[in-house]
Amino acid sequence: MNEAGLPSNWGRWGAEDEIGTLNLIDDAARARAAAEVREGTSVSLARATAPAPLTTGLTPVGSPATVPAAVMQVVNFNGIRPTAVTDSLLVNTHNAALTHLDALCHIPAGDKVYPGVPLEQAITPTGVRHGSADHAGKGIVTRGVLLDLAPRRGSIPADHRVSGADLDAALDRAGTSVHPGDAIVVRAGWDVNQPMGRPVPGLDLSAVAWLDEHGAALYVGDIGDARPPVFPLPMHQVALARLGLPLIDAACLDELADLCSARQRWSFMLVVAPPRITGTAGLAVNPIAVF
Amino acid sequence: MNEAGLPSNWGRWGAEDEIGTLNLIDDAARARAAAEVREGTSVSLARATAPAPLTTGLTPVGSPATVPAAVMQVVNFNGIRPTAVTDSLLVNTHNAALTHLDALCHIPAGDKVYPGVPLEQAITPTGVRHGSADHAGKGIVTRGVLLDLAPRRGSIPADHRVSGADLDAALDRAGTSVHPGDAIVVRAGWDVNQPMGRPVPGLDLSAVAWLDEHGAALYVGDIGDARPPVFPLPMHQVALARLGLPLIDAACLDELADLCSARQRWSFMLVVAPPRITGTAGLAVNPIAVF
Amino acid sequence: MNEAGLPSNWGRWGAEDEIGTLNLIDDAARARAAAEVREGTSVSLARATAPAPLTTGLTPVGSPATVPAAVMQVVNFNGIRPTAVTDSLLVNTHNAALTHLDALCHIPAGDKVYPGVPLEQAITPTGVRHGSADHAGKGIVTRGVLLDLAPRRGSIPADHRVSGADLDAALDRAGTSVHPGDAIVVRAGWDVNQPMGRPVPGLDLSAVAWLDEHGAALYVGDIGDARPPVFPLPMHQVALARLGLPLIDAACLDELADLCSARQRWSFMLVVAPPRITGTAGLAVNPIAVF
Amino acid sequence: MNEAGLPSNWGRWGAEDEIGTLNLIDDAARARAAAEVREGTSVSLARATAPAPLTTGLTPVGSPATVPAAVMQVVNFNGIRPTAVTDSLLVNTHNAALTHLDALCHIPAGDKVYPGVPLEQAITPTGVRHGSADHAGKGIVTRGVLLDLAPRRGSIPADHRVSGADLDAALDRAGTSVHPGDAIVVRAGWDVNQPMGRPVPGLDLSAVAWLDEHGAALYVGDIGDARPPVFPLPMHQVALARLGLPLIDAACLDELADLCSARQRWSFMLVVAPPRITGTAGLAVNPIAVF
Repeated sequence: MNEAGLPSNWGRWGAEDEIGTLNLIDDAARARAAAEVREGTSVSLARATAPAPLTTGLTPVGSPATVPAAVMQVVNFNGIRPTAVTDSLLVNTHNAALTHLDALCHIPAGDKVYPGVPLEQAITPTGVRHGSADHAGKGIVTRGVLLDLAPRRGSIPADHRVSGADLDAALDRAGTSVHPGDAIVVRAGWDVNQPMGRPVPGLDLSAVAWLDEHGAALYVGDIGDARPPVFPLPMHQVALARLGLPLIDAACLDELADLCSARQRWSFMLVVAPPRITGTAGLAVNPIAVF
Repeated sequence: MNEAGLPSNWGRWGAEDEIGTLNLIDDAARARAAAEVREGTSVSLARATAPAPLTTGLTPVGSPATVPAAVMQVVNFNGIRPTAVTDSLLVNTHNAALTHLDALCHIPAGDKVYPGVPLEQAITPTGVRHGSADHAGKGIVTRGVLLDLAPRRGSIPADHRVSGADLDAALDRAGTSVHPGDAIVVRAGWDVNQPMGRPVPGLDLSAVAWLDEHGAALYVGDIGDARPPVFPLPMHQVALARLGLPLIDAACLDELADLCSARQRWSFMLVVAPPRITGTAGLAVNPIAVF
Repeated sequence: MNEAGLPSNWGRWGAEDEIGTLNLIDDAARARAAAEVREGTSVSLARATAPAPLTTGLTPVGSPATVPAAVMQVVNFNGIRPTAVTDSLLVNTHNAALTHLDALCHIPAGDKVYPGVPLEQAITPTGVRHGSADHAGKGIVTRGVLLDLAPRRGSIPADHRVSGADLDAALDRAGTSVHPGDAIVVRAGWDVNQPMGRPVPGLDLSAVAWLDEHGAALYVGDIGDARPPVFPLPMHQVALARLGLPLIDAACLDELADLCSARQRWSFMLVVAPPRITGTAGLAVNPIAVF
Repeated sequence: MNEAGLPSNWGRWGAEDEIGTLNLIDDAARARAAAEVREGTSVSLARATAPAPLTTGLTPVGSPATVPAAVMQVVNFNGIRPTAVTDSLLVNTHNAALTHLDALCHIPAGDKVYPGVPLEQAITPTGVRHGSADHAGKGIVTRGVLLDLAPRRGSIPADHRVSGADLDAALDRAGTSVHPGDAIVVRAGWDVNQPMGRPVPGLDLSAVAWLDEHGAALYVGDIGDARPPVFPLPMHQVALARLGLPLIDAACLDELADLCSARQRWSFMLVVAPPRITGTAGLAVNPIAVF
């Protein structure tokens, strides 16, 4: 707990720590993950994101096109008779239309980032120097547990604030338990890629306390902080910024829920492997559950 | 074999097929992958790539900077007192400094892409319509086998052309066997991110025949086609374009080789999960080996 | 005239020519331009274009924003306490929301560009090698004449096709004459930045013949080719591609018309000075009329 | 003068002013500009800037290319048989390889921009709200005077600091006088696009005082502030930030000097017309001198 009564891990793993609760993934946690793998069946926890053309003017009479912005694509011109086809992507990582990992530096607490590094030391014009997403670049492999708040492809109400009790209830339904170092995967049946003014459900501070108490190493959700926002934002300003709990935002968990339901098994090995690009505040990611 | 005497899978899985040799990953292949997982230890097969600033003019007296081009980064300006830190990345996927997956459409064979789709139907100004990388977006999970051509962190000569016999020798050293649907991981001890004029080793056509005969579903290598090139390019114009064998270029396999050597075990579960972005000619990827 | 009965200047100024009708601006044309300058009053013929942020994720709760695409802006992050403020712009030159100069290479005639250069020689993946916009980079200074098709801030109907007779009538109203080397400025009272499906008026082939016969060196208009299009496109596929007449698209001419009307003078010195960037198919431009 | 003894125009034209010394261009200044136009001959004061490809991977064997950064170009892929050729440009405006206009907001004085507006009101993540370059978007037309510090295509030493006395000497050589509202064009025979560590000459505070006393409306130079820098930077932190004197950086003035020398006339009409893009900290520009 810090002075404001908010849970905090600042200092728990030292003043230089860059991985936060990923420290909880130890050999025992890895062995628990391995034990979940039986058939080799897998499913993606990422939403499919269609890029928009970065460039317009593709017709001779002028194009007044507008483009959405999560990912923009340049199909490269490789000559009139191309021997290769390539493209370049402009990725706006933190867009709600793209499943992505929030780095620990993504949200400052005042003028510091986890675990107390001054913002101007951590963030420079030429990249992130502390708390960047590449600390997940070696890959995160741990046991994952799905907490489905709205079984059978249901969805929770827009104004619902998910509490620790809600997570307990979902865990009861799953009939399993959570161990320190596990990834907690929360499905609410929502697509957070909504216009800014539209309400979206999210977790409350009691849910953050629950994640802390259960030793969650990683959070993956199709929801995160509610809109309209309440400050401090439970997931971004408390779980991420103070607990050092990495967040995977804008996941798509329907197929995972179907697989879990069919097997009546809500745990699996989770593999998270963002592109190994250094010095960023976040990275697009495609978490894979393996059964 | 096609009319030119080159091996080809055009038509093997139908005229509409978009996944090529990934068709070989069946339940048995997945079960073999699952059987490789014992401890939950993992290692990344991707190189770390540092982005360059997309923008200059960062000093008041003018910046004549030049930038390298695999990934460029915009650290977003989120206001004078930022409540969030974000960035955007421009990813030039097929750059040799970035571990990436080549989609089947990446290299045409004449004016067609695998398995015979006219180039202008497959590639449009607004994205790839046939043979795009997103067919790997659900995640590839299969058994991987490391063939280390230069054990103990050695490297092969720049002018060496890797043959099927070389692959056999490495497989012998590994003391294991290859099954249809496996991913073949080839380490030559090379960094292919070299100036264009500098020679780089690569695989020859007999190695491509070897991959075909052994039922490789996926190729991951720290080398691919040699430079200076010989046409047809064995890996890009034959394996990728005609066999429909997806390639992961510019991998970094030293840590994997160390782990395999320490365990005296050259097989593992391989998880490949590129960002789930649709309609591209390739995607940055971070393959993870799990033991 | 070429084989199809379309007017053409291919060959008129040699097989290597890159400036087309700008060849008509000689010392006499420049002297006529100079004679128009009396007070030093000036007006812009460009529309104001507001850029959109290239990047999103500007709020801690995720931004589903979409962006229009004529110009996108990165406000550079220059550190927590910036000593300079800079930005970078991504300019989609040929967007209908941006006043821009079409280079002669912009529209091929079949597989050639003016005056008969093979497309693959003219256009390369690393830039335009023949017929690029930088040939206007030294600045175009000539006499301009405004032909206002809809005086007193009127506008012509969406389905109107502007003919040579329409241009004659406007020139009669202006009470002046056109000389070889003049820039012809056509105001229809339209904004061409409309959704693609919406009709927009344009010039017909008789208007192109008129421009040819009168020795127009440059065309500036708030309209160009009509939508829905009729092929060959009179302005882009005939005037630009065959006559070598550079076009300035998407001009904004209301203020110019007001100034001309107030002075009862429809001629002026026109200065066109795009950024001096080489090897492009077009450039954003801000034409200035000086009285 | 402000508290630090530095010349300042904060407040001279009101607390909301956005154009600074451009206020000095009145009807008399415009008439003086008009009187300079005799033949209609013109010359560009901008350097030619070649863009680099924004994208790589243009060859099937992988491209390790690096790119310079003033302007990057995407040659758009418009289909296998293109009916149009277009490109998009990424313009890093304040790069020393590109002739550009510095907006008044470009350099803050502490946490304020000219004439005292708080930085966070003036600069937002979605664009510049005070002191942006678009205030020059209507076009600047005024009389220009060339002060050639190194006649006959000479150049001044790298360690020279140009003083007010140097400007007086050049004005004497020119045999003309300066009037309030004139643009002062300073040629030192230098290319400021040099590696950051290399010395470059610049103006000192007495030169800034000279510009202030002579009523300069605009500064155009092939030099600006010296490198290594001395603080406060005379041109950027005093002339621009405190006097509100817009600067055109990285001009190329050799052709202009040749024309002036041939005519023995060092004054002309200057037309400055940046693309009319709003809300920026600067814009690429191609100033044109008309004789």
